Amino acid sequence: MRNTTTTIYLNLCFCLACCLWVVQPANAQEQATWIWYPGDYEIWLSNQMQNRRTERGAFLPPFWRLYSHYALVDFQKEYHLSSPEEIEIYVEGEYNVKIDSKLIHGRPTRLTLPAGDHNINLKVFNQTHVPAIYIKGKTISSDTSWQVTYEDKEWIDESGKVSDKSSTVWVNAGSWDFDEPTDLPSAFQMEIQPIPAQTVAQNGQQWLIDFGKETFGFVKFHHLQGKGKLSLYYGESKEEAQATETCETLDHLTIDQPDAADYVLEGSRAFRYVQVQADPGIQFDSVSMLYEYLPLDYRGQFRCSDERINQIWDIAAYTLHLNTREFFIDGIKRDRWIWSGDAYQSYLMNYYLFFDNPSVKRTLLALRGKNPVSSHINTILDYTFYWFIGIYDYYLYSGDKSFIQQIYPQMVSMMDFCLGRLNDNGMVEGLSGDWVFIDWAPMSKQGEVSFEQLLFCRSLETMALCADLAGDSENVSRYQSMASSLKTKILNTFWSDEKQALLHNRVEGKLSDDVTRYANMFAIFFEYLDDEKEQAIKEHVLLNDSVQKITTPYMRFYELEALCAMGEQELVLQEIRDYWGGMLQLGATSFWEKYDPTEEGAEHYAMYGRPFGKSLCHAWGASPIYLFGKYYMGVHPLSAGYEEYSVEPVLGGLDWMEGAVPTPQGDIFVYCSGKEIKIKAEAGKGTLRFQSRSKPSCASASIQSKGDNTYEMTIAPGQEYVVKYQQVKSRGR
Amino acid sequence: MRNTTTTIYLNLCFCLACCLWVVQPANAQEQATWIWYPGDYEIWLSNQMQNRRTERGAFLPPFWRLYSHYALVDFQKEYHLSSPEEIEIYVEGEYNVKIDSKLIHGRPTRLTLPAGDHNINLKVFNQTHVPAIYIKGKTISSDTSWQVTYEDKEWIDESGKVSDKSSTVWVNAGSWDFDEPTDLPSAFQMEIQPIPAQTVAQNGQQWLIDFGKETFGFVKFHHLQGKGKLSLYYGESKEEAQATETCETLDHLTIDQPDAADYVLEGSRAFRYVQVQADPGIQFDSVSMLYEYLPLDYRGQFRCSDERINQIWDIAAYTLHLNTREFFIDGIKRDRWIWSGDAYQSYLMNYYLFFDNPSVKRTLLALRGKNPVSSHINTILDYTFYWFIGIYDYYLYSGDKSFIQQIYPQMVSMMDFCLGRLNDNGMVEGLSGDWVFIDWAPMSKQGEVSFEQLLFCRSLETMALCADLAGDSENVSRYQSMASSLKTKILNTFWSDEKQALLHNRVEGKLSDDVTRYANMFAIFFEYLDDEKEQAIKEHVLLNDSVQKITTPYMRFYELEALCAMGEQELVLQEIRDYWGGMLQLGATSFWEKYDPTEEGAEHYAMYGRPFGKSLCHAWGASPIYLFGKYYMGVHPLSAGYEEYSVEPVLGGLDWMEGAVPTPQGDIFVYCSGKEIKIKAEAGKGTLRFQSRSKPSCASASIQSKGDNTYEMTIAPGQEYVVKYQQVKSRGR
Repeated sequence: MRNTTTTIYLNLCFCLACCLWVVQPANAQEQATWIWYPGDYEIWLSNQMQNRRTERGAFLPPFWRLYSHYALVDFQKEYHLSSPEEIEIYVEGEYNVKIDSKLIHGRPTRLTLPAGDHNINLKVFNQTHVPAIYIKGKTISSDTSWQVTYEDKEWIDESGKVSDKSSTVWVNAGSWDFDEPTDLPSAFQMEIQPIPAQTVAQNGQQWLIDFGKETFGFVKFHHLQGKGKLSLYYGESKEEAQATETCETLDHLTIDQPDAADYVLEGSRAFRYVQVQADPGIQFDSVSMLYEYLPLDYRGQFRCSDERINQIWDIAAYTLHLNTREFFIDGIKRDRWIWSGDAYQSYLMNYYLFFDNPSVKRTLLALRGKNPVSSHINTILDYTFYWFIGIYDYYLYSGDKSFIQQIYPQMVSMMDFCLGRLNDNGMVEGLSGDWVFIDWAPMSKQGEVSFEQLLFCRSLETMALCADLAGDSENVSRYQSMASSLKTKILNTFWSDEKQALLHNRVEGKLSDDVTRYANMFAIFFEYLDDEKEQAIKEHVLLNDSVQKITTPYMRFYELEALCAMGEQELVLQEIRDYWGGMLQLGATSFWEKYDPTEEGAEHYAMYGRPFGKSLCHAWGASPIYLFGKYYMGVHPLSAGYEEYSVEPVLGGLDWMEGAVPTPQGDIFVYCSGKEIKIKAEAGKGTLRFQSRSKPSCASASIQSKGDNTYEMTIAPGQEYVVKYQQVKSRGR
Repeated sequence: MRNTTTTIYLNLCFCLACCLWVVQPANAQEQATWIWYPGDYEIWLSNQMQNRRTERGAFLPPFWRLYSHYALVDFQKEYHLSSPEEIEIYVEGEYNVKIDSKLIHGRPTRLTLPAGDHNINLKVFNQTHVPAIYIKGKTISSDTSWQVTYEDKEWIDESGKVSDKSSTVWVNAGSWDFDEPTDLPSAFQMEIQPIPAQTVAQNGQQWLIDFGKETFGFVKFHHLQGKGKLSLYYGESKEEAQATETCETLDHLTIDQPDAADYVLEGSRAFRYVQVQADPGIQFDSVSMLYEYLPLDYRGQFRCSDERINQIWDIAAYTLHLNTREFFIDGIKRDRWIWSGDAYQSYLMNYYLFFDNPSVKRTLLALRGKNPVSSHINTILDYTFYWFIGIYDYYLYSGDKSFIQQIYPQMVSMMDFCLGRLNDNGMVEGLSGDWVFIDWAPMSKQGEVSFEQLLFCRSLETMALCADLAGDSENVSRYQSMASSLKTKILNTFWSDEKQALLHNRVEGKLSDDVTRYANMFAIFFEYLDDEKEQAIKEHVLLNDSVQKITTPYMRFYELEALCAMGEQELVLQEIRDYWGGMLQLGATSFWEKYDPTEEGAEHYAMYGRPFGKSLCHAWGASPIYLFGKYYMGVHPLSAGYEEYSVEPVLGGLDWMEGAVPTPQGDIFVYCSGKEIKIKAEAGKGTLRFQSRSKPSCASASIQSKGDNTYEMTIAPGQEYVVKYQQVKSRGR
């Protein structure tokens, strides 16, 4: 569907030494695109995607409520034409066209409008697909400046007069990048690329095919011929493909193909290995697969002096890419669903790899669904909050104010749902039907869990921020004051001077003695605590082995982030080497849903009571992408859309590192060794902050000392800076 | 789709003299049927139907919000099997089957369950059509005792345990009468019957075809051959079919058919006349049409001594039948939409003709849509209230408590919408986006319109009644007290001693001087007034020619009902003769949307600023059906489902009348002349009430005198009563 025109320059700019200033081509003229009611396409497409899950041939859909697109949608825009103009009209659905409120007879596909002021209006019905239009003229073109509504409340009185158009709520249309009339949204397909098998072991009518690494797509038989049964057993591990009775995905085909012809399976699957079993009457030349992927640019880059780390970064990038599809999904083998907590981490990783805003927006819209809200997102209390917080992050990284304005009413109704479920203390707790997830680890989910209060508090802060952006000034202070009173309450309730940590929960008024890592690490990178408490948590929780350890890459993400935020990059680097490196040592070609170093052999593949229940390619396994970009190269936005940003490179034990961090207007290139920092940014106003044992120097900028061996330097766009300095090895925050 | 097995006995029982007691066949064994989430099919089917409207070839959909079915639905039921049982499984959509929470691999179409207790669960996804299932075994069969939900909130923890199924809200499934596995709900089609043209006038390549009366369906060309354009201009009147530039519906076809073959048009149209124009290269043998209709039994019957009235009744019955389709629609030519106010009258007429409960239920469900409620039904304030009141009537006539329980939550959310829009006086008024319709007549729609308050008050009474039936005892008194306080407020505010009537409205605290018929006539048959005020209204409003007259059959319905309720059957009979008879004199073969006797010629066909905008076959034109059944034969239920009922025959100037009124358990046959009343009822406990100048007699029952020439007699089921009496000509209430 998409033309990927920007891949070329990436190879040019990786090495900072030879970095060229590459201007991205801007659209010279108005681009028409397919448009729809915002969120409609995302809901429809996610319904398609999330209902493709199978478990051993059985259909396995989500257990939460699915919404549908609006079946009947109005589109309109006002135009002033200085000369007559012909427009072409393409529509997905049954439709009519009104020009200046006058219905055009028939179903026009071309119309000429006279010069002057005009209102163009189309009304489209489509129950099966999303009502969508594509209009193209010389100056007229369908885009997100068009307005849409799902109830026009316009009626015609007995005398033929059109009444009360005024009360209709119009919003701006949604789009993605369906930019050609023939590029129908309903016909969306990702790209495919043929991949040959790497090794094939044959034993009579039984084959074990290895594609060399985790992959996703459609198995293809070449010159398949004959009659009988053909079975495929997929495995992310060899053991799984061989376990015909317990592998998670399989296909049983009935072949009746007298003449040899290629045969591509209908359903996409995730696998590295495929075991094929065929009846004697069936033969084929070979087996390959069509790799299915979303075309994305790897704008973020990272290389360093440690090859193991480089390998981890590459596998993490591949893992994230495999899970960045129609939407950010959890894992490619099993659910293939959009889980808000999983997606939240993908958003953050995405900002340091693809910087693909449409993927974030699609996912946020699909997760939200429509009104009425009758349960938490994915039914999970915490996942609702990640949805809010993800919007905060999205704005900070992208600066995309119009999306915030678009989604704000949906945020309000989602927050209303949450506020309607508070307990008498104004805190959240899991009510009937709410899944309090937090992590796959044994812990109490009862009553007021401190971790959930923190996420809720951050969600309220997000609401205040977005209310401001959406011009809902009345509610800015309302949400702010709710957030600040909740924050106080959290600390007063859960902070234990004895434990020097936030306690885990309070059940029916009784505080628990438990300390878990969750609330404590979030409190750090949410910056809800003073320095003293942060240090106390570091000592008594994060670096305390007697506090229950984290075994999912999901929560490792936050744990390592908290440690990095406190300057523990060296420690974290070792953790990454051990934990992610541990998976690599076990032969991982993508990162897993869960990894427990104490397990052995095929134990690693079991989960949910099933021997191969675990996903071996899970988005949340890719967090090194985020950690290296944000906490080693040290790049992050200080204001929305990287208008201002900070670069604080921390080697954390590496000899050198270099890479690129994408931003809305271009990339930020960083090279850092113990003696030299090189920076070039394509846009924005940056602040380089670093420590040096001796006075640093830069030929093209002045460096300011901030005391305590800390220095700062301003980075202007388009210029390359080379800073000579002397690394301070052990760095505290 | 349906087998109509009950038509035969109707011919037997029309004449009371030879009436036989016919037992309707009961289903001997459990009947499996296609089931779905209640309301889903109705919403889906109404979307299909309401988006078939065209205006001169242009698509013309509704201007209100359309909802969609739930795309993902769970079905379940618990069974105890005394022996193993095989079931067949048919599904519309992608699905899985769980037995006792265990997912069955693959997509089973047959399963054998062992003896014992079982939970059968199916989960179905279908975006395009409605998720629906049909299950058939020896004792297991899908029916409305199955439960459904659109969000199961059931998740599987890391250990494989299913968690929290408890919070899921299950409701009973919906169905219609798709009783065979092959009888797919998505493939619903009404019946068709070929009808030949009555006359054809040819002029070269131009034909004017007359089908003899108003009809609906698909035009068919026999042995159509050739190449070129073929145009059809439809007319409910000859003038319309001849007006190629202004007729409301038309079809332009491009024919390329070298070999002669029959050709049926794709779109259904309403017409009596069709003008065909063909290019010279096109020829055909003849033109006929396929009449499309919902098969329904004419259970209600009426014949009397006045042939004009008999003709009116027949045309009214045909008019109602034409408009009783997938749903009760307004009219067959133009909108073909479900308008709540129009449908409300169809429900009432239906109780005296088809007594087809499914049509009422389908229509009520389709009108309601789903949550969230964001506008009044059809955007019209009064139409929301008719929706509530229609449910009250439905219960009274049908006794169908389970439907009330099913729809009650939807009533609550609709009423919440209304209550959220009250003004400071606790009254309703038209806010932005609300259409205050009342009737097609010039009048103020501003502020607090007394008519709207009356409908609102009746709606609150309906809520109290239904809250009771649904077991929501807490809200019974809440709605009751709101209704009773509003009723007091209405009388205190709008009753004018000076005008001896309810005033029309109050705008910004200022009462209007206007008196219109609307509130006054509703107050009468709602029985909101004392006798004195009723008589005052009769004199000062209903029989007062200086109060603006009513020109739509729509409001004539209520005006004549009010007069009948006050014993003015003689006057009303004359009105019916004049008004409906007036249309017949103008050649009507079905009754119109509006009729103004002062208009002439083709003026009658104009409306909405278009020369043929008026519908000549409008459901609300059929009200004599209701009036004769309820106020002449005088049959109506006193308690739900006709367990108790009243028969008060009033000849109103006729020499004799006879007929049948359908009830849930059978029909009530009535014959009445000035000297004899004959009654036979198949079920229920009836009370015959009549006036007689002399002491009446009945061989098989005792008659009680109630004073004032009034007598009462109890009617037991299955018995024929013949009462000799002497009619009292002029009857007051």
